[in-house]
Amino acid sequence: MQAATYTIAVLGGTGAQGGGLALRWAKAGHRVIIGSRSRESAVQGALQLSTLLGDRHIEGATNEEAAALADIVVLTVPYAAQAATALPLRAHLASKILVDATVPLVPPKVGRVQLPGAGSAVAALQEKLGENVKVVSAFQNVSAHHLKALDTEVDCDVLVCGDDPESRNVVIGLIQSIGMRGISAGPICNSAASEALTSLLISINKAYKSPGAGIRITGLPSGNGLGGRP
Amino acid sequence: MQAATYTIAVLGGTGAQGGGLALRWAKAGHRVIIGSRSRESAVQGALQLSTLLGDRHIEGATNEEAAALADIVVLTVPYAAQAATALPLRAHLASKILVDATVPLVPPKVGRVQLPGAGSAVAALQEKLGENVKVVSAFQNVSAHHLKALDTEVDCDVLVCGDDPESRNVVIGLIQSIGMRGISAGPICNSAASEALTSLLISINKAYKSPGAGIRITGLPSGNGLGGRP
Repeated sequence: MQAATYTIAVLGGTGAQGGGLALRWAKAGHRVIIGSRSRESAVQGALQLSTLLGDRHIEGATNEEAAALADIVVLTVPYAAQAATALPLRAHLASKILVDATVPLVPPKVGRVQLPGAGSAVAALQEKLGENVKVVSAFQNVSAHHLKALDTEVDCDVLVCGDDPESRNVVIGLIQSIGMRGISAGPICNSAASEALTSLLISINKAYKSPGAGIRITGLPSGNGLGGRP
Repeated sequence: MQAATYTIAVLGGTGAQGGGLALRWAKAGHRVIIGSRSRESAVQGALQLSTLLGDRHIEGATNEEAAALADIVVLTVPYAAQAATALPLRAHLASKILVDATVPLVPPKVGRVQLPGAGSAVAALQEKLGENVKVVSAFQNVSAHHLKALDTEVDCDVLVCGDDPESRNVVIGLIQSIGMRGISAGPICNSAASEALTSLLISINKAYKSPGAGIRITGLPSGNGLGGRP
């Protein structure tokens, strides 16, 4: 079976994590548009990423243009910009999947778990956007450092949470297309675990002097169509 | 260097998880006392566990007696019994390490992350007990099913959170003594991540029909004294 290809908008694609994902998806054959508040920054960022790729072209646009053009929209902005970036795009997100990688870090103590009152930052966005937008939580635990090292495998599973099982599966396919393993991990409220885990990994990075600790889920039966290594 | 051996009280040691830990610690050469509200249940439980071990003896006592005798106390009771079990033992816990494995599951939807208002159930207990008790969070993500299978390696890391770094290290040593890898994961508030992760693993068990999914931390430098496989 040929893998599906999509037009993917990466909002915050000028950042390290968004840029790493954009690179990997473009390399896998998807059409990728990175979005930024300023078209100029987006175009410039896209040019830099395209240069790294060589034979593939990444486009740049405003967040609004990128969201309008995309089949699937990915949000990789700091927590403080999450709602302000996504809410004005509501019309362009209707009936689409919004992959939200937001982690509610509270500087300066980013190694301490400090979830918002409602629990999960991503679940809170799903609530604000309404069920017409299929919010899927993913990529909270994947180190940008490793994502940008295009020629190496990222030794980390991606926990995928969302209320719509079909959308979770599409996102798991997107993850598989860049050689990683997505794990279906329950409803959107479970994103609280993925989000909390990021501060814990930051703590671990500091304690063990790691450039980017990650996680693997163990104990899954093999041969059930899960991509990547177990 | 010879590993340290301790007298360990496992409160809730008549349950599946506590029993599994008691078995493994006794096998590793520690003196193990399982505690229960009723001395009779504890003695009977201890007898059953001792039979499984053959050449090692596990003792049974009331929670109070067990806590008084122990160097290190381990709490493996349901969330609803956590505070009611630990708070009356305050005098016996003074200056000791209390390893708390509590997970704030909310039946019947135990696969949904539903952390208490304060965030972490274990951090809330630390707060109630005061800093004279060294509360360390551990074992939230280890499947009782795997722990009881004494002859097999448990393919799961143990996230270890606590405000006292020295106590975290003692607990990491205890974990190493049963062939598992403990990972120093920051202050006690970070237990929120370990606790949330349990519901996520329950969700994963259901989705992938696993008897007990677990986690591994990846990306740590090797050769830094971390026990177990990376």
